[in-house]
Amino acid sequence: MSETWYTQISKVNPNEIRLRGYRIDELMGRVTFSEGIYLALKGELPSPEIARLLDAIFVSSIDHGVTPPSALATRTATSTGAPINAAVAAGILSINDFHGGAIFNCMGVIEEGLLRLGKPDKSLEKVGFEIVQEYLASKKRMAGFGHRLHTADPRTARLFELADEAGISANGIRLLKALQAGFQQVGKDLPINVDGAVAGILVDLEIPRDLANAFFIIPRVPGLVAQYHEERTTQRPMRYIDPASAQYNGCEDRELPERSGK
Amino acid sequence: MSETWYTQISKVNPNEIRLRGYRIDELMGRVTFSEGIYLALKGELPSPEIARLLDAIFVSSIDHGVTPPSALATRTATSTGAPINAAVAAGILSINDFHGGAIFNCMGVIEEGLLRLGKPDKSLEKVGFEIVQEYLASKKRMAGFGHRLHTADPRTARLFELADEAGISANGIRLLKALQAGFQQVGKDLPINVDGAVAGILVDLEIPRDLANAFFIIPRVPGLVAQYHEERTTQRPMRYIDPASAQYNGCEDRELPERSGK
Amino acid sequence: MSETWYTQISKVNPNEIRLRGYRIDELMGRVTFSEGIYLALKGELPSPEIARLLDAIFVSSIDHGVTPPSALATRTATSTGAPINAAVAAGILSINDFHGGAIFNCMGVIEEGLLRLGKPDKSLEKVGFEIVQEYLASKKRMAGFGHRLHTADPRTARLFELADEAGISANGIRLLKALQAGFQQVGKDLPINVDGAVAGILVDLEIPRDLANAFFIIPRVPGLVAQYHEERTTQRPMRYIDPASAQYNGCEDRELPERSGK
Amino acid sequence: MSETWYTQISKVNPNEIRLRGYRIDELMGRVTFSEGIYLALKGELPSPEIARLLDAIFVSSIDHGVTPPSALATRTATSTGAPINAAVAAGILSINDFHGGAIFNCMGVIEEGLLRLGKPDKSLEKVGFEIVQEYLASKKRMAGFGHRLHTADPRTARLFELADEAGISANGIRLLKALQAGFQQVGKDLPINVDGAVAGILVDLEIPRDLANAFFIIPRVPGLVAQYHEERTTQRPMRYIDPASAQYNGCEDRELPERSGK
Repeated sequence: MSETWYTQISKVNPNEIRLRGYRIDELMGRVTFSEGIYLALKGELPSPEIARLLDAIFVSSIDHGVTPPSALATRTATSTGAPINAAVAAGILSINDFHGGAIFNCMGVIEEGLLRLGKPDKSLEKVGFEIVQEYLASKKRMAGFGHRLHTADPRTARLFELADEAGISANGIRLLKALQAGFQQVGKDLPINVDGAVAGILVDLEIPRDLANAFFIIPRVPGLVAQYHEERTTQRPMRYIDPASAQYNGCEDRELPERSGK
Repeated sequence: MSETWYTQISKVNPNEIRLRGYRIDELMGRVTFSEGIYLALKGELPSPEIARLLDAIFVSSIDHGVTPPSALATRTATSTGAPINAAVAAGILSINDFHGGAIFNCMGVIEEGLLRLGKPDKSLEKVGFEIVQEYLASKKRMAGFGHRLHTADPRTARLFELADEAGISANGIRLLKALQAGFQQVGKDLPINVDGAVAGILVDLEIPRDLANAFFIIPRVPGLVAQYHEERTTQRPMRYIDPASAQYNGCEDRELPERSGK
Repeated sequence: MSETWYTQISKVNPNEIRLRGYRIDELMGRVTFSEGIYLALKGELPSPEIARLLDAIFVSSIDHGVTPPSALATRTATSTGAPINAAVAAGILSINDFHGGAIFNCMGVIEEGLLRLGKPDKSLEKVGFEIVQEYLASKKRMAGFGHRLHTADPRTARLFELADEAGISANGIRLLKALQAGFQQVGKDLPINVDGAVAGILVDLEIPRDLANAFFIIPRVPGLVAQYHEERTTQRPMRYIDPASAQYNGCEDRELPERSGK
Repeated sequence: MSETWYTQISKVNPNEIRLRGYRIDELMGRVTFSEGIYLALKGELPSPEIARLLDAIFVSSIDHGVTPPSALATRTATSTGAPINAAVAAGILSINDFHGGAIFNCMGVIEEGLLRLGKPDKSLEKVGFEIVQEYLASKKRMAGFGHRLHTADPRTARLFELADEAGISANGIRLLKALQAGFQQVGKDLPINVDGAVAGILVDLEIPRDLANAFFIIPRVPGLVAQYHEERTTQRPMRYIDPASAQYNGCEDRELPERSGK
């Protein structure tokens, strides 16, 4: 007979489903999707400020056009007639070190740096500069810095702003900025990219590093669904998909109307 | 040279990312994740009422314990050392006709039924009864009805309640209830399950059926992430995973505290 | 306690592994991979003639350059740093109705046609012509016919030749040729493609249709491995992959040397 | 316009397909699947002796019953109604460090060990003992050694025998045996498992380590297909799959008949 094993996520009985202790039908209509995600992953509901920050993280990564490899893999699978789950899975399998995987790697850089802080005479600035030196010496790229397109990623500035508003900015974000300053000291103007900003926030939110890339995968799934649906409804099957030949012909630029309380 | 092709989802230029026309950094902090998802898929932001209903749909499907096949596939892959994206992809590949795929199939039943409504002398009740008769005659199971565990799925009732509060309940939900009444007329007390309830709502929200299962896949991804993380942090690799031997030992039953404005 | 369930594929005990009754270490060195595959799927070893035909089917589908969607999905995932299994899985998920999936669909056409043969006054020719008429009337493409590149697929002719040499050509292949003749009668010179030829052979080998696409997936996996390896060792990460810009610069054309006994 | 990029695997023109320079229709019927795989991956056809060894490697890993996680993931997906490619992909995604991934890791141990051989006064024996000491000191498990079921894996002995017959046994296999001897010196009777044996052979065949796990994935795919087919044809959907409750009820033990020339 198989050995009993344990789970702490959901309790499911006939006509009763509880997520981390709360009845799911009681959560429905009272908490947002982001709050539910945080509850599932961390075991507690977030404060309203953190919930707003999570919403911003997720909104920032829903989509980035047709050129990211995850969008192209989803479109390639879709183009052969793949069902929606296979098309999305092909996209998720294209989220790795060079695309979307930087959150995990950047959290590693930050967490390793924070360990050094404990030692005497180590300021954030010194640690940041020290790590930059080591990376330059080893000729490695540092995860969370630089982007093939954006020199000043608009998502990064906004995330830092919202982290401040939520009152959670701490040593994670500070070390990240110290790393950026370290690059500047040697004449390199490397922008913190959205993966880096998310990594800094996750460190300050005490999210386990093992979950890092979930904060890209979870929001990108709806984006992949949108890519799947557009490919399927506007393109012929088995076409050659050249990412460089795509043009935007959607809705014109518009401003977000005032929204009550936001 | 490759032919130009078009996309309407995102416009991406250096330091400017727009989703359906809105600057992403303007959306961040102002719209929730659910609102962003709806914007990506439908091209417009939802009303606050529909946003709340979407949150409820997504919250309802985040997790359902360790026994759904998607959770087990994710845990099985995790148990071999799979990275997070592969573990989640294995779970998504286990979302098909018999698990999670019922939204698509149930939307098909409803949409086909609504087509019959146009004809003279066809009330919702008649159409519902007619379709039930056909299913019984062909001995097919009707997608969206029945559950291997729940006889009165608490998520279903709550979803209908919230759809009413959002003011969107229309012929989709009505036909679904007519189908349930049709089963009752022949003595079958078959509950509408959560997939069925979501299907009815999606019909009334005029979501294309091609996107049906996205409304299960999108919310279940964070649940699969939670399953991955728990397997990885609490179990040894390569164990035999018997779904019937799992027990819940998490947080005790608790009530959701009052939350301002909700 | 969980209910006992049964399997007939392998018997595994400490230090003893048997595939369909044979000790695996006894099979090793005595049967080829193709013979082992047939044994696993059908439960018996093939005759030497059928083994040679299987080898030909598998060799025919190992690779078809960089433009098939499965190769492109594998390369796209690889380009993001995917491990080999994720890269191959992304490729396999791009094998569907419009690419590789035609074996299943074409077997369906053939098997449905063969059912009609039983009726009086129905020759292969008549059935073939009849089905072609129905397809033309419904404006559907017939799986197994036509190719976006090859007007006379060299693999098709060779497969039929080898099926004849193996002595297994029967009504499956004959009906396929009757369908081709049916198209010719209406002035359409549609070639049988490699998927069609494999479908005809599988029908004559009495392989269950449920396994159809396995005869494309199994051989294409090593091809996807080759694509993964070449992408990884010769290209930079995160490049734009335009299928139309690829050129072959490999080994020059060469002839296969005489090989003893083959 | 997109930049030209190059491939050396296949040359595809209308009605002409060449794999590594050879016409595919000329290869068909003349080379086995294993020879075709080697050609695709290495660029040249193998000798008959190496071809036989490859066949043995592939045959050894086709299937190992229902308990490996890859088989269970495939069955779990199948049980939800997954199409064959998704079911196989879910299985492949469950091939990682703790299952099937040991070939890559063991090749790493061997290759690192061989680098030390160059130094003066370093015999195979010394290097083997040295590495074992290091592993014991760090309390790491060594990939390629030990099995949860087999104490003397019948596949291992047979692979070494066939490698000797093929005349390819060299320092890769020798170092592996030196490692085993190293464990014995400290009183640990750890068997070389099938992954280890394959790793040693691949080193001696000068297969790039990047391809290591392909030599498990390629042969296991047909096994996963067999698992998919059996699940689909003999089990009901959405059942609880307890690996510990499975029993073999297939073909009785039998001996392989004499086969001409083998």
